[in-house]
Amino acid sequence: MSEFSVIEQYCTALGASHTETDLGVGDDAAVVTVPPAMRLAVSVDSMVEGVHFYPHTKPADLAWKLLTVNLSDMAAMGAVPKWATVTLTMPNEDHTWLADFSTELGRAAAEAGVQIIGGDTTRGPLNLSLTIMGLLPKDKVISRSGAMVGDDLYVSGTLGDAALALAAIEQRVALSAEHQCAVETHLHRPQAQLALGQALLGLASAGLDISDGLLGDLTHIAKASKVSFEIDSEAVPVSSAYEAYLDAGGDLSFALAGGDDYHLVFTAPTQHRSVIDSLATDLSVAVTRIGRVVPVAPTPVLVLQNGKPAPELNLSSFQHFE
Amino acid sequence: MSEFSVIEQYCTALGASHTETDLGVGDDAAVVTVPPAMRLAVSVDSMVEGVHFYPHTKPADLAWKLLTVNLSDMAAMGAVPKWATVTLTMPNEDHTWLADFSTELGRAAAEAGVQIIGGDTTRGPLNLSLTIMGLLPKDKVISRSGAMVGDDLYVSGTLGDAALALAAIEQRVALSAEHQCAVETHLHRPQAQLALGQALLGLASAGLDISDGLLGDLTHIAKASKVSFEIDSEAVPVSSAYEAYLDAGGDLSFALAGGDDYHLVFTAPTQHRSVIDSLATDLSVAVTRIGRVVPVAPTPVLVLQNGKPAPELNLSSFQHFE
Repeated sequence: MSEFSVIEQYCTALGASHTETDLGVGDDAAVVTVPPAMRLAVSVDSMVEGVHFYPHTKPADLAWKLLTVNLSDMAAMGAVPKWATVTLTMPNEDHTWLADFSTELGRAAAEAGVQIIGGDTTRGPLNLSLTIMGLLPKDKVISRSGAMVGDDLYVSGTLGDAALALAAIEQRVALSAEHQCAVETHLHRPQAQLALGQALLGLASAGLDISDGLLGDLTHIAKASKVSFEIDSEAVPVSSAYEAYLDAGGDLSFALAGGDDYHLVFTAPTQHRSVIDSLATDLSVAVTRIGRVVPVAPTPVLVLQNGKPAPELNLSSFQHFE
Repeated sequence: MSEFSVIEQYCTALGASHTETDLGVGDDAAVVTVPPAMRLAVSVDSMVEGVHFYPHTKPADLAWKLLTVNLSDMAAMGAVPKWATVTLTMPNEDHTWLADFSTELGRAAAEAGVQIIGGDTTRGPLNLSLTIMGLLPKDKVISRSGAMVGDDLYVSGTLGDAALALAAIEQRVALSAEHQCAVETHLHRPQAQLALGQALLGLASAGLDISDGLLGDLTHIAKASKVSFEIDSEAVPVSSAYEAYLDAGGDLSFALAGGDDYHLVFTAPTQHRSVIDSLATDLSVAVTRIGRVVPVAPTPVLVLQNGKPAPELNLSSFQHFE
């Protein structure tokens, strides 16, 4: 089957349908209109078999994750996702795989309000990429560079579950069946915090999504904002699965340095505390204050235990060439 | 080296620099402003080793081609390319390769007025993709669906050189050293017809870039516009290398059905003939009238020789799952 037919068969009219889309899949390029009061936010992420996911991962899980890691970048900026282009390289033309993948991509994209407006399929080792485009008001954005000394430091959700799941799958730690299921769901089906990111526009002074691990990601904000951070380790939110792991002798390494959580870490001036608490309640999202922005120090992120530096918790973030 | 550092080292501030770019590489997403009178054209193409290029192809040639195949899609729409995101999967962190690739990508992007605003590097079998974004006026576009019965059919440049080069490299045909060099340059360094595409906005009734071969690509227009085509085979423009190949007993197969030419094929009402001739002269681009749009017929594209159907030239386009 030709390139044209494969794309047409599986990728026409996937996801949402927007009035701002003048031409979708099927021409040399899609054509869209960005409303006059808005700007365009653009991000790209790719996923490779054996690096970002195990061989034989379900195509529906891959579709979900490919979209979600990109949605998470939109959430981190406070943007409303609208359009995406997808590239898919696969070893052979597996129509069952393609059907499962495209069905879930379409379903998840529609749920997130995203229309797939372009794609390219090629033969080769399994490799997926997605470029996402979203809308932002002209005068607002959550970037990495706005954190101010004295601001509060927050995270959404609980941290470390994806890294704990990987450790459990690779039998480096033992979890109960119930807890293993819970953390694996977190690993395979992360949730992008779109509503929270959009609600934080104008409130958060800086932020990003936790994809490389809290300490590593905070280092990015520290560098861009020319500040440092203090984290109160007692305040770092973890799941009941993670609590059980701690009770069995585990430590906070996964929560502080594990990746793939796709929750948001952000800073905000102290006067916004009550507004942020209220919007978290309204959105049914856990938002936890875990520390503060401090003047530039030798260590970009200092982890405290009972108010004192805890050297054993000041781990290097997971570093990967990915 | 971490993902962050690789991207930062090689992909920060590549290409042009636009005032409409509010945030470039380095945050979770780039942020750009689309001018109020314009729309956004978006397209994506990927390239895989062994499918789209030979192993050990020079990284600078890959960078050029990755950008050019996408620029060609902008040319086909009449759009002005502005921004791009890039994904690069490579087996190992080869800094010489990365430096050569990014230097040429930056140089070629700057030349085309394109700013690289996002990227993702991953480890794995060599795989490249680029999503390009360009600007189009609100009221104009060259799509596949506007061809009208009676319109003229044109192509730019000469056809078949890329396919002839492949055949020569694979020793299926023999060319002189001079001609082989000329067609290989065409294969490795195709030129996107951006100025021509932009000049044809408002003149061309339909068009696309010839990436799959003239007959195959015309079939796309035929389908979208609900018309058929007649081509006068004597009028099909070929290079002097191709002329030599014809003189040695070759036929028009490569010119009619070969891919990778990245010239434009377009239709236009007959009253625009003199304007199109003038703009081709002004832009120093060869533009040749090769046929006409006819009512829907059993064959979407009929190739004529001296005004009569030439069955031996009515080849199927090169079909690939790519």
